[in-house]
Amino acid sequence: MKINGTAYRSVWVDTEDSWSVHILDQTKLPWSLDVVRLVTRDQAAHAISSMQARGAPLIGAVAAYALCLALRNDASTEAMERDAELIGATRPTAVNLRWALERMLTRLRNTLPSERVAVAYEEAALIADEDVARNEAIGRHGLPLIQAAARQPRCMGRPLGRPLGHAVNVLTHCNAGWLATVDWGTALAPIYAAFNAGIDLHVWVDETRPRNQGAALTAWELGKHGVPHTVVADNAGGHFMQHGMVDLVIVGADRVTRTGDAANKIGTYLKALAARDNDVPFWVAMPSSTIDWTVSDGVAEIPIEQRAAAEVTDMTGQMADGTIATMRVVATDSRAANPAFDVTPARLVTGLITERGCCAASAEGLLALFPERR
Amino acid sequence: MKINGTAYRSVWVDTEDSWSVHILDQTKLPWSLDVVRLVTRDQAAHAISSMQARGAPLIGAVAAYALCLALRNDASTEAMERDAELIGATRPTAVNLRWALERMLTRLRNTLPSERVAVAYEEAALIADEDVARNEAIGRHGLPLIQAAARQPRCMGRPLGRPLGHAVNVLTHCNAGWLATVDWGTALAPIYAAFNAGIDLHVWVDETRPRNQGAALTAWELGKHGVPHTVVADNAGGHFMQHGMVDLVIVGADRVTRTGDAANKIGTYLKALAARDNDVPFWVAMPSSTIDWTVSDGVAEIPIEQRAAAEVTDMTGQMADGTIATMRVVATDSRAANPAFDVTPARLVTGLITERGCCAASAEGLLALFPERR
Repeated sequence: MKINGTAYRSVWVDTEDSWSVHILDQTKLPWSLDVVRLVTRDQAAHAISSMQARGAPLIGAVAAYALCLALRNDASTEAMERDAELIGATRPTAVNLRWALERMLTRLRNTLPSERVAVAYEEAALIADEDVARNEAIGRHGLPLIQAAARQPRCMGRPLGRPLGHAVNVLTHCNAGWLATVDWGTALAPIYAAFNAGIDLHVWVDETRPRNQGAALTAWELGKHGVPHTVVADNAGGHFMQHGMVDLVIVGADRVTRTGDAANKIGTYLKALAARDNDVPFWVAMPSSTIDWTVSDGVAEIPIEQRAAAEVTDMTGQMADGTIATMRVVATDSRAANPAFDVTPARLVTGLITERGCCAASAEGLLALFPERR
Repeated sequence: MKINGTAYRSVWVDTEDSWSVHILDQTKLPWSLDVVRLVTRDQAAHAISSMQARGAPLIGAVAAYALCLALRNDASTEAMERDAELIGATRPTAVNLRWALERMLTRLRNTLPSERVAVAYEEAALIADEDVARNEAIGRHGLPLIQAAARQPRCMGRPLGRPLGHAVNVLTHCNAGWLATVDWGTALAPIYAAFNAGIDLHVWVDETRPRNQGAALTAWELGKHGVPHTVVADNAGGHFMQHGMVDLVIVGADRVTRTGDAANKIGTYLKALAARDNDVPFWVAMPSSTIDWTVSDGVAEIPIEQRAAAEVTDMTGQMADGTIATMRVVATDSRAANPAFDVTPARLVTGLITERGCCAASAEGLLALFPERR
């Protein structure tokens, strides 16, 4: 999507040297737009683990390019397998990371070492281009849900008018926008599609503590694209739903089970509970690469990444003089815990929006869209 | 309760001049312990509106003393009524504020202007002392709930062991501790009672955005008293409940309807939904002065204070050099909304803990404890 009129992707190969990889440093957003040039496997792995590049689909693409950079250094089979394992260990929850690496390895294992670098860049570019196409399709399939909400007085028997003066109010959690993918985004793809189609919409953006991806990234990218939005504390969504101020919720996912359970940023489950309690449709938008066909019980089986306590105890922001600073926001002697994801059971999910269309959050729903998985 | 071994209340009259009023500046906690001396009505009103003094019961006591300070300046009936109205307008949601002022006025309207100052200080001291006694009683009545959770393998059929090595894990939201009252607290009173009784408990402290009362105040006061606790993002509680890591939830309330709906800090409703979804008991602890016997439908009838967007967009904390600073944490051009409370419907509340004992969150339950309200 666009930043001040210029089209960007969130990862791209240098057009001059044709091998170094560029990303936006998302830990610097929204305060500054820093392009980072990645030239080694370790730089690329660090970009993923430090969340300079984050969001399940983008992580997959950057992991693919990380393997390209590794192969430039050593294209032997032994090195390739070791490097893929190392890159795969940077984030434990995102299934896209392993999906992208497995796809790369499947092709590269049948490629002579001398040809692996060229083939790897080709495959990584395919992964990136296919991600863009998939997300555009997610936007196309999600658009009717927003159009329907705009046409109705309110969702499901709540004829409460237009409390904010907009035709549709969508709530989203974390950042599942174009910054989290190669382009378009997942949860935000239908929102961009609706906005581009002229629908008068407004987005409630959950701040998304502790890393503030909503306040920092979603608000930034919606603002750059011109989409009306309001940032709210993660605590506020239930109240807005109780008062008819949310027409639908759309979130992304880091992993979806074959039964439709959705692991997404911590706090998503709480919004799904509130949506259910107030008859607000709750949709999960994600590419099919996010589906883990081997897992049936998301709460019991999906490992949840425990991130550093410092993400809770310390916060980064912009001082009045424009400098970026980090400060402590938790009482000095208190400790903190930081589970990064939670799992929303399928029973709370109205449906899934995929690149092939929408379906029920269930094994039957997913298999109807992806019959090759039967 | 104690700070570094010294017993404090959260509001007290100067022991030397016997008229000026002291509070702790809670906007400075946990970074520094600043005692503020209030000598005028406007200072006291500002202390309430700026949340130097916050928490429903403490606001009531400070409002009573604010009227004492006003009467020292002008004890005429006209001035008294005008001053009470002005003080009552500082926070729209807290019913204790108006309860305390009404109690003061009821006594003072039947008092000669020349005697009003002395009578007012006497009545304000009674309000403060009665608050302490009530909260101690809340702790006494809540203690068996924690004892029962400590004795059971887990609450309600979840024999999952002791995931954190403590006998009981309690989750709380916002600050309903001794800082929010004159002493003991409401939600924290049973926790202090259990800790003092030697029960091995651990408290999950919700950060409580946007003002961080959990991370700043609850963590601070639990830490000063020695109670084991861990600060978590507001998003995390549902995940912990899904995994059997919360035995019970205890929160305070700013207003409880005659039917048991509870208005409390924004986000409480989301935790109540998660508690219900995971069979975790959800208790609301509050003095009976918090009950608004005129309101039956909390969601429809309780006005929700909309506070400044800056509380969401900006955060205050401690820099590495020890200085306190405020910085922006939301993308520069994005706006924010800030509803300060939400309402948890009685159907999600396991029960209420009052100074007279525990009861169901219903009109029948409350009337059984307070038969004089029939």
